[in-house]
Amino acid sequence: MGLVVQKYGGSSVADAEAVKRVAQRIVAAKKEGNEVVVIVSAMGDTTDELLDLAQRVSPAPGGRELDMLLTAGERMSMALLAMAIGDLGHEARSFTGSQAGVITDSVHGRARIIDVTPGRIRQALDNGNIAIVAGFQGVSQDSKDITTLGRGGSDTTAVALAAALDADACEIYTDVDGVFTADPRIVPTARRVPSITYEEMLEMAASGAKILHLRCVEYARRYRMPIHVRSSFSTLDGTWVAESSEGSEQPDMEQPIISGVAHDRSEAKITVVGVPDKVGEASTIFRSVADAGVNIDMIVQNVSAADTNRTDISFTLPANDGRKGVEALTAIQTAVGFESLRYDDGVGKVSLVGAGMRSHPGVSATLFGSLADAGVNIEMISTSEIRISVVVRGEDVDTAVSAIHAAFDLDSDQVEAVVYGGTGR
Amino acid sequence: MGLVVQKYGGSSVADAEAVKRVAQRIVAAKKEGNEVVVIVSAMGDTTDELLDLAQRVSPAPGGRELDMLLTAGERMSMALLAMAIGDLGHEARSFTGSQAGVITDSVHGRARIIDVTPGRIRQALDNGNIAIVAGFQGVSQDSKDITTLGRGGSDTTAVALAAALDADACEIYTDVDGVFTADPRIVPTARRVPSITYEEMLEMAASGAKILHLRCVEYARRYRMPIHVRSSFSTLDGTWVAESSEGSEQPDMEQPIISGVAHDRSEAKITVVGVPDKVGEASTIFRSVADAGVNIDMIVQNVSAADTNRTDISFTLPANDGRKGVEALTAIQTAVGFESLRYDDGVGKVSLVGAGMRSHPGVSATLFGSLADAGVNIEMISTSEIRISVVVRGEDVDTAVSAIHAAFDLDSDQVEAVVYGGTGR
Repeated sequence: MGLVVQKYGGSSVADAEAVKRVAQRIVAAKKEGNEVVVIVSAMGDTTDELLDLAQRVSPAPGGRELDMLLTAGERMSMALLAMAIGDLGHEARSFTGSQAGVITDSVHGRARIIDVTPGRIRQALDNGNIAIVAGFQGVSQDSKDITTLGRGGSDTTAVALAAALDADACEIYTDVDGVFTADPRIVPTARRVPSITYEEMLEMAASGAKILHLRCVEYARRYRMPIHVRSSFSTLDGTWVAESSEGSEQPDMEQPIISGVAHDRSEAKITVVGVPDKVGEASTIFRSVADAGVNIDMIVQNVSAADTNRTDISFTLPANDGRKGVEALTAIQTAVGFESLRYDDGVGKVSLVGAGMRSHPGVSATLFGSLADAGVNIEMISTSEIRISVVVRGEDVDTAVSAIHAAFDLDSDQVEAVVYGGTGR
Repeated sequence: MGLVVQKYGGSSVADAEAVKRVAQRIVAAKKEGNEVVVIVSAMGDTTDELLDLAQRVSPAPGGRELDMLLTAGERMSMALLAMAIGDLGHEARSFTGSQAGVITDSVHGRARIIDVTPGRIRQALDNGNIAIVAGFQGVSQDSKDITTLGRGGSDTTAVALAAALDADACEIYTDVDGVFTADPRIVPTARRVPSITYEEMLEMAASGAKILHLRCVEYARRYRMPIHVRSSFSTLDGTWVAESSEGSEQPDMEQPIISGVAHDRSEAKITVVGVPDKVGEASTIFRSVADAGVNIDMIVQNVSAADTNRTDISFTLPANDGRKGVEALTAIQTAVGFESLRYDDGVGKVSLVGAGMRSHPGVSATLFGSLADAGVNIEMISTSEIRISVVVRGEDVDTAVSAIHAAFDLDSDQVEAVVYGGTGR
């Protein structure tokens, strides 16, 4: 008998029928002899509808009250799920984030978890009940106000409670069958990855794979909590994210293990043209962008031209923040003395992720060669220990993903019957 | 500077525009120098929609989870209201029933308030904030589970918090201008009653006047908290419900003070025909109905006919419970030995309420005379210290209300511009 934490997203509980289906799945895990804790998100589009409602009342709603409003969403889904489980003859008790002991800081809208004290959850389990917990929410340590955790909050709630309860595993249910070697909508022959390390999953998430949020993987890695990412629409095994990659294949230990190819179309590129080649100019530029609250991803600085002592600095950022970035830089143009700005949101990023990549120089050569053969021009390159990312034209992303996937022999013999993202609603 | 508690019902906050209008009203009270605590119900039809959702998931949802679900309704309205107040330049903080210290027993769906510990509300007021509190909900003392208070719960929350905070008054905002001498839809010349005692208001509420729930008036009476019932759509004075009736008129002290005429079409009548005239038969009959969870209102037993030693017993009950009542009685028919049951849901109850009625025998005579003159047949009569109720045919209710209203000189000189019930949505 084990303790399992399951997390179901909004699309898994989109309507009454979906709630009942999820209830059956939960009861099945209980019947197998497990103690079961379930984290649930708000139903379908509830959160967006509540945001709409807030906009109709107030142009700039305060964080405390917006969190109070939004947390109504999980309150509904968790109560409904507990009812549906009750109809199947098992007792379930729902708990808000606050009741479940999810203690956070006071930053409304994107609070960080600072402690988890799941006494009431432990007690419910001891009483033989299934515990249903609202994802995405907590209570602030200082003011006892209700908070929300922001993006990836429900996944993070699940991992945090799993760690605090010393669960055997944290199952994240989603609408795909697991982590794939590439987006099957682009590469129909992409394979499910049976297992992947925390570090590789972090690089995949940072490179645009939307299946797990960076934050949840970071939390799991810190507490060494195994995550099982799987579909709520099938009983197949999904992908295990854990300490060491123990795939069903036994690869040659000296060969680099490639996890997959990720891509991201949500970024834009800013080039600062003609920056005087003086100490501290780059620092001034990136400080101004950071002060505007913009996260920068890749940075490339060219060698300065000998005749002008000027250089170009390019970086990528979320396209949503493009305007903020350009405004911040325009404000310091005179002070820094650069010549102009170029903004380009027609780019895409393609990344190859896998362990042991750096020690195998052949990996970069194969990657660049495959893109050249496919006629894809590379605009920027960035590498880490276990990742190589390139920025290409947006319209070349699909070609690049397919070319790299094939070049590293990731194609499976048969097409798996999945759709990557956005089913079942 | 005073402390005022205001309560706004669901129709007062039915949509974004209504929420903003209420926010202005609250800010006006704050600007007058008051400390302001606001109790708010769920928006418009939210509670019904949540009940629908529960029905789609579960045929018989558990009480704990149903309360968890329903309390999402006030959570939304209170957060939105706080946002709207923020936009007007005042800081409002919303609190759930639990956060506001509304402590209840554990009877889900109709919990009773057993304590109010409004420490966080007091602190918010001390910080200069407006406190917005979810009506209709609390937290159970034993299990710390979320509870709902059932019918009249939001009004009761308002009065309970007003009492616990030692407020100067509790203002109940509704969609009518106050308590009237009769339903203005039936009697266009009905007058607003400027003030009424707790006891009279209790009788009015028990007699079918829907403006305040019995429970809230009982609570106010126990703590001597003055209630001001008024319209959220005007700034006119409404009706004060308080210890002594201090109307603007100064009536002759020896004359009975008539508060008004109430009516109720929601009851049905059951007649148990041919009950053997033995000790204990009535007790058996009413015990069986009570055990079925049915509240009985009026009871009439005729003198038994000398030749048969049998009698008829009639009583009224909520028409919603009619089936339960008939089933309970049918089950004991053989044991009791009565002849038959007659069920009649085509009846209506009309009540005259006023202080000092019993000591003025002329009141009954005037009332019965006015009905006779109007051609209305009386089926049952019941009286209390400050009320006379009659059961008549349902189609005679309007005629009876008008006739009694006129007979006691309650008609005003002019028609007031109100609609009784159901405006503004």
